Amino acid sequence: MQNLKEKSLELHKQSKGKLSVAVKVTIENADDLSLAYSPGVAEPCKAIYQDPQKIYDYTIKGNVVAVVSDGSAVLGLGNIGAGASMPVMEGKAALFKAFAGIDAFPICLNTQDAEQIIQIVKSIEPTFGGINLEDISAPNCFIIEERLKKEMDIPVFHDDQHGTAIVTAAGLINALKVVNKRIEDTKIVVNGAGAAGIAVTKLLINMGVNDLILCDSKGAIFEGRAYGMNAMKDWISVLTNKENAEGSLQDVIKEADVFIGVSVAEAVTPEMVESMGKDPIIFAMANPIPEIMPVLAKAAGAAVVGTGRSDLPNQVNNVLAFPGIFKGALQVFASEINEEMKIAAVYAIANLITTEELTYDYVIPHAFDKRVVEAVAKAVADAAISTGVARNISMKQPTNY
Amino acid sequence: MQNLKEKSLELHKQSKGKLSVAVKVTIENADDLSLAYSPGVAEPCKAIYQDPQKIYDYTIKGNVVAVVSDGSAVLGLGNIGAGASMPVMEGKAALFKAFAGIDAFPICLNTQDAEQIIQIVKSIEPTFGGINLEDISAPNCFIIEERLKKEMDIPVFHDDQHGTAIVTAAGLINALKVVNKRIEDTKIVVNGAGAAGIAVTKLLINMGVNDLILCDSKGAIFEGRAYGMNAMKDWISVLTNKENAEGSLQDVIKEADVFIGVSVAEAVTPEMVESMGKDPIIFAMANPIPEIMPVLAKAAGAAVVGTGRSDLPNQVNNVLAFPGIFKGALQVFASEINEEMKIAAVYAIANLITTEELTYDYVIPHAFDKRVVEAVAKAVADAAISTGVARNISMKQPTNY
Repeated sequence: MQNLKEKSLELHKQSKGKLSVAVKVTIENADDLSLAYSPGVAEPCKAIYQDPQKIYDYTIKGNVVAVVSDGSAVLGLGNIGAGASMPVMEGKAALFKAFAGIDAFPICLNTQDAEQIIQIVKSIEPTFGGINLEDISAPNCFIIEERLKKEMDIPVFHDDQHGTAIVTAAGLINALKVVNKRIEDTKIVVNGAGAAGIAVTKLLINMGVNDLILCDSKGAIFEGRAYGMNAMKDWISVLTNKENAEGSLQDVIKEADVFIGVSVAEAVTPEMVESMGKDPIIFAMANPIPEIMPVLAKAAGAAVVGTGRSDLPNQVNNVLAFPGIFKGALQVFASEINEEMKIAAVYAIANLITTEELTYDYVIPHAFDKRVVEAVAKAVADAAISTGVARNISMKQPTNY
Repeated sequence: MQNLKEKSLELHKQSKGKLSVAVKVTIENADDLSLAYSPGVAEPCKAIYQDPQKIYDYTIKGNVVAVVSDGSAVLGLGNIGAGASMPVMEGKAALFKAFAGIDAFPICLNTQDAEQIIQIVKSIEPTFGGINLEDISAPNCFIIEERLKKEMDIPVFHDDQHGTAIVTAAGLINALKVVNKRIEDTKIVVNGAGAAGIAVTKLLINMGVNDLILCDSKGAIFEGRAYGMNAMKDWISVLTNKENAEGSLQDVIKEADVFIGVSVAEAVTPEMVESMGKDPIIFAMANPIPEIMPVLAKAAGAAVVGTGRSDLPNQVNNVLAFPGIFKGALQVFASEINEEMKIAAVYAIANLITTEELTYDYVIPHAFDKRVVEAVAKAVADAAISTGVARNISMKQPTNY
């Protein structure tokens, strides 16, 4: 680990960051200049002025995503601020490019006021084809995403919420196949009511889960709970925990089929796994130390265990989702990334592993599985078209689709 | 011209804009990912959190410039809006890269409210090492630049003002050598009191010009003029036109040594040139049709004529200034681009042409003269150091300097 830390510092220092801007046209003489810049550049400007949708023909907008953060909830480091979040946002932008060919650029904002962030992001819409919100703390992340989705005309996606939710759900779909259970019959306990926990819960309910209890550090969230609530928990309490179960995680995990942790290291004990139903499924995604280590969970009877770690089986890695999701959305000029598109991504990821290939230790494709981005992009684009949020912006069909 | 228009549209459409984002590090496997992204990326984040100046070591900030526009005064097209300005801003960013290796990115804002623009640009400071304001109409461009210079800790530069002023001044220095006049003895008339005209006037006065009259469409601007004034013209009227001359351009151009036009096509007649002093110098920069065509001006007695056009001698092209100015400012982590740095750029550009090489038709280096950017960067960096605005941000000396 020490070695990794030093190597990462060295890498960042040597290259002075991870991104650069490249020029796609030749600028070597006066003729080049007169086409790419003045006076020739006036023509695409006039064309866009006359028909604003032509911006997708003549500029980079259609393939450019802003990676926006206020630095308020960076990795596990907390509120380290916008400047210190830059290496993460550059890294995220680098992943967009490496995995999906999308030109992404960090936009780190030195304000943590939700309304200001909303206004700023709305203002930069002319340049960007999509907005990836990153490492913004709750509840601002919910407020900002909801407002921007309503008030902007391009896809807005808070990856910490939905990326994690989509990949977890894909893993869950496959894990349920392995243990031969149906999603609508499962009892699921989600631990952690931050951005990821809320998003996992919402997505699973939209996918047909009927019995789900969300826990926070104070235990099960139930309708009318008088302590530690907020607007989002209030809303979630109505959709979940139908029997209004009270008590600690230890209490409500009993007989559960699935545990999904987006909480803290070692939140789950072997005894708690033993108390679960038959063939329990565990996604323990606290980083770097999971809610329970796979070896302990398996010894306690877990059938399938996934974590956030690349050195363990069944890694829930957002890189399986966001590159393809944005690629698909941008390909069809989607105006938003809706629930159907997210669920399409879930099944696209899950279905890359055939029933024959599925094992306890292989329910999620590997992060570098080259098939993932295209499969997700195609599914997401199709879902955008079928839900009517794709737009026929360009006269010609977008390339690669 | 028709051919140029079609070729420019085709170029922009084929390449879908002119920029892309490139990744400077390798991301091909899990090890790469763990260094460039999670978990290794936490280390540079923590280092920057502990020492904010380390952002220049570990991120792209030190070499990244935002090309910011609200689309209110784009080329000669006027207020076409932020979306339609994108091809110009991408082009500008491409020039930053092609001429100076600077990674610039367009930030086109769909607001034209000065206060909002100020707040937005201040908010994106964590990501950018410099701000190039572009194609923002007067008086907002003055208000925005002045406020941002005061309130931001990185260089802010409105190129439409200062780029034009710097290159014009460089050409003037050399033209005066050709006709054997001293700058402090010349009578100069500037026509056009927009962003460029105001900036040319300010710079020339700071360079020692004693006799300058600024004209707008209503004629000479003088102290106490009761019509067509604004705050900037009021301020300029005190610094210029010491004898408070009134009248039209035709009136005040009489006996002038230098005419500088940043106004409209054909604003100057041969008769007006004939009325000027001995060996008159003309910079006629209205685009694409100058205030007077060089052939007409020369026939009327002009000694040196410059324009904004690449197909005519002595082209005043901003590309001679802004790449090197930002390169020099970024190299020494300058906190601003001050008047001394601008004047240093003027002389660096002018002095690239030796006295022996100077001719009536060669007072400004060619746009693609490879020596320009380094000469300007060095002069600007030196001036930043000598005026105390360079900062010793990094432990090690910046590269290339």
